Amino acid sequence: MTLEGEIVEIGPDRIRVRGVDIEELIEGWSYPEVFWFLLTGRRLSSRERRMLEAILVAMCDHGPTPPSTQAARLVASTGSPMHAALAAGLLGFGDHHAGAIELAMRVLQEAVRSAELGRDELKGTAERLVEDFLDRGERVPGFGHRYHRRDPRPPALVRLAERLSMVGPHLRLALEMEEVLLSRKGIRMNIDGASGAILSDMGLSWRVGRGVFALGRMSGLIAEVMVEISCYKPFRKFHEIKAS
Amino acid sequence: MTLEGEIVEIGPDRIRVRGVDIEELIEGWSYPEVFWFLLTGRRLSSRERRMLEAILVAMCDHGPTPPSTQAARLVASTGSPMHAALAAGLLGFGDHHAGAIELAMRVLQEAVRSAELGRDELKGTAERLVEDFLDRGERVPGFGHRYHRRDPRPPALVRLAERLSMVGPHLRLALEMEEVLLSRKGIRMNIDGASGAILSDMGLSWRVGRGVFALGRMSGLIAEVMVEISCYKPFRKFHEIKAS
Amino acid sequence: MTLEGEIVEIGPDRIRVRGVDIEELIEGWSYPEVFWFLLTGRRLSSRERRMLEAILVAMCDHGPTPPSTQAARLVASTGSPMHAALAAGLLGFGDHHAGAIELAMRVLQEAVRSAELGRDELKGTAERLVEDFLDRGERVPGFGHRYHRRDPRPPALVRLAERLSMVGPHLRLALEMEEVLLSRKGIRMNIDGASGAILSDMGLSWRVGRGVFALGRMSGLIAEVMVEISCYKPFRKFHEIKAS
Amino acid sequence: MTLEGEIVEIGPDRIRVRGVDIEELIEGWSYPEVFWFLLTGRRLSSRERRMLEAILVAMCDHGPTPPSTQAARLVASTGSPMHAALAAGLLGFGDHHAGAIELAMRVLQEAVRSAELGRDELKGTAERLVEDFLDRGERVPGFGHRYHRRDPRPPALVRLAERLSMVGPHLRLALEMEEVLLSRKGIRMNIDGASGAILSDMGLSWRVGRGVFALGRMSGLIAEVMVEISCYKPFRKFHEIKAS
Repeated sequence: MTLEGEIVEIGPDRIRVRGVDIEELIEGWSYPEVFWFLLTGRRLSSRERRMLEAILVAMCDHGPTPPSTQAARLVASTGSPMHAALAAGLLGFGDHHAGAIELAMRVLQEAVRSAELGRDELKGTAERLVEDFLDRGERVPGFGHRYHRRDPRPPALVRLAERLSMVGPHLRLALEMEEVLLSRKGIRMNIDGASGAILSDMGLSWRVGRGVFALGRMSGLIAEVMVEISCYKPFRKFHEIKAS
Repeated sequence: MTLEGEIVEIGPDRIRVRGVDIEELIEGWSYPEVFWFLLTGRRLSSRERRMLEAILVAMCDHGPTPPSTQAARLVASTGSPMHAALAAGLLGFGDHHAGAIELAMRVLQEAVRSAELGRDELKGTAERLVEDFLDRGERVPGFGHRYHRRDPRPPALVRLAERLSMVGPHLRLALEMEEVLLSRKGIRMNIDGASGAILSDMGLSWRVGRGVFALGRMSGLIAEVMVEISCYKPFRKFHEIKAS
Repeated sequence: MTLEGEIVEIGPDRIRVRGVDIEELIEGWSYPEVFWFLLTGRRLSSRERRMLEAILVAMCDHGPTPPSTQAARLVASTGSPMHAALAAGLLGFGDHHAGAIELAMRVLQEAVRSAELGRDELKGTAERLVEDFLDRGERVPGFGHRYHRRDPRPPALVRLAERLSMVGPHLRLALEMEEVLLSRKGIRMNIDGASGAILSDMGLSWRVGRGVFALGRMSGLIAEVMVEISCYKPFRKFHEIKAS
Repeated sequence: MTLEGEIVEIGPDRIRVRGVDIEELIEGWSYPEVFWFLLTGRRLSSRERRMLEAILVAMCDHGPTPPSTQAARLVASTGSPMHAALAAGLLGFGDHHAGAIELAMRVLQEAVRSAELGRDELKGTAERLVEDFLDRGERVPGFGHRYHRRDPRPPALVRLAERLSMVGPHLRLALEMEEVLLSRKGIRMNIDGASGAILSDMGLSWRVGRGVFALGRMSGLIAEVMVEISCYKPFRKFHEIKAS
């Protein structure tokens, strides 16, 4: 992804996005497609468009369980306006939460870049990567979930990638890692791992991973804030923070 | 729009969005469609889907001119992480900026609700509404732009609404108001007016207007933050705040 | 409070705060004193300084119960940096939470401004004000607390105001209102009411009330975020959001 | 600094801060003193209290030049409420801005911890530290300022530390580093270096540095937001972001 200088040109009565008039985008482009174009200057193929759409949908919401959503609803509950609540939600996208997609993408991208990764090498690399994390007593980014043993989203994304013939080296590596982790620890791929691998195969830098998640989760944050405002009394006691 | 209680059900290995399994959404729905479904529980028709897509695209970015984008880039420039920069951008969606779409929608929705609004009445209502604002020395929400005399986005959205046969009473009223304002003050509809009118015709409460804008602008905020990080030195002097 | 134009002059090797060199402030002023000076251009008397200090101390923390503190700790728990967690805390200062101090101040300031408020009139005004809120089924801003029946902070502030001979018309009115509310509903003054009344007697506009609270609670937000980071595992499950 | 578990106990009608009733704090403690007590559980001596006060005052404001203040004022200008504007300001406390105090404190604390640091060794350590940064082409954290060659704040703080006999190993090391940097590059200590060194001598962990700055700058952010709201038209054009 190269971003050379400003990407949107604003003149009187004119808005050009990476050289294309906004009217043209409005008339025929999908929103995720424009997002990718803004980021990279590249127009997605129709298969890629379908894939990106599915990734954003997979990220859309996880009910009131994520800390980011809880922060957003707490803030909305105090009477702060919608946009302040959404901002509080985004602030919860730290390294242990939404940031995990960037860690997962980085691991995959560095491994793929450093090797030819033929079928055989793939397995070895996957084993080495998993072992490195386990040896350090760390969680492997992109795998495991607090609530699910079999998160339904990663298989749905992987199936779609297969159907669209979009399984590239990053996803292949992630699938091998899953096999290793599953046999050793009973842990499966999560949404960060699946979407991060596919986005990497689509050429996106790991540095924008959190941005993709921000876009994908924004729909859910908005809806969850509306639930809080519409269905609950303001300033309610959500909970007592537990001491352990 | 009725939101009764929680909208997403999280069980072990299961995510149901308003009663639909997430796998089903991943496999066949578009992202804007899921957004609308999260908000309202209603699945859009294909014409409506096209329209919503166009509205989100129209909102995608306005270069580095909006205060929200400037706040996001300033924050990114200090070395704060992407999600903090995006949050700062959202915080700039105050009543004078992104909030204007809610004001515009509210004006239109209250006027449409209170009248039968046949063709004749429409013109009278438009005149009365515009006059009320002008008499109070206020700007009419949904009309006028700091940078453009003829913002290219509203006509593109209106053309699409016409082509899709989606011109309802709110957009008709907004177009009449534009005629009044154009002849009196040379002021045209802006993106808040056009998208707010169409969203109102699609049945969206004005209370979620800022949310739609947040989703539509998120793509641009992410891309603009990447521009700042990739192309400029950190902690650069953006400008001196002018004293007037 | 008049704020005419910029308040801090930055020259090469020079920082002047409302006309006073920063070196002079550093050498002899207290921090709350400088805060007031920045806001109003007026230097507090030593009695007032003592009073402001006590108000800020009273606001310092309320453990992990306020939604603002919960939002801050949730965000810290995701691995977001300290300043993002503090920002999320501030975002929880909505109208139903920290904003209540502004509502309380506004009610008092408008009542005091509109009347001579001799001893007799005071009682009548207090009764009328309380009744107005109760008739509308609303809570009286500045009175009542979710956790305390007798919040220990207001009496401590009132005692200090008495000792310093700083009981003015706003505090007198608030005390009368408390008497009315106590006999009718068993409800006492809260921290918003006590500090808002005293700040009003000190001449502060209600528009800055939330700012004073932001400064006073900042110490607690910082400490609570440190507790979260130092004593708990990251990304822990705080709680399930209750459905009612 | 040890933080073992929760620090504030909330019971019905009772608030205890690290074991001390809030009434007691209200009656006799200064606000910065309570801040330190919340953070560390230690009550400052009167000399230390004076020093902390001066550090917070030194941090109070830098007019409209810092990106954090600009972000806060931009957000206020859009009509977002005060607390959202303050939050946006805090979000600008990234590693290149307010975060620099933590970097400065960390460098000093690690150097002091690793050596006996007698007078002689001090000079050698200072030279080595400065050289390490210069060799890597990096700025030395705690030194140099975008606007000032001789920032007036560090000397004022150092003079006070000397007068209070509070010059410890961290400040001594920082002063030696300044001598090295001044002779080689003409660069002097900045506010991060001076306050970070003194706070380190007072025993504060570098991990809370940004928190101290957040408290110190909060007064200025509030006042600057009031300036923006009171003296300027909403949604004004601050500037064009420069392309270089």
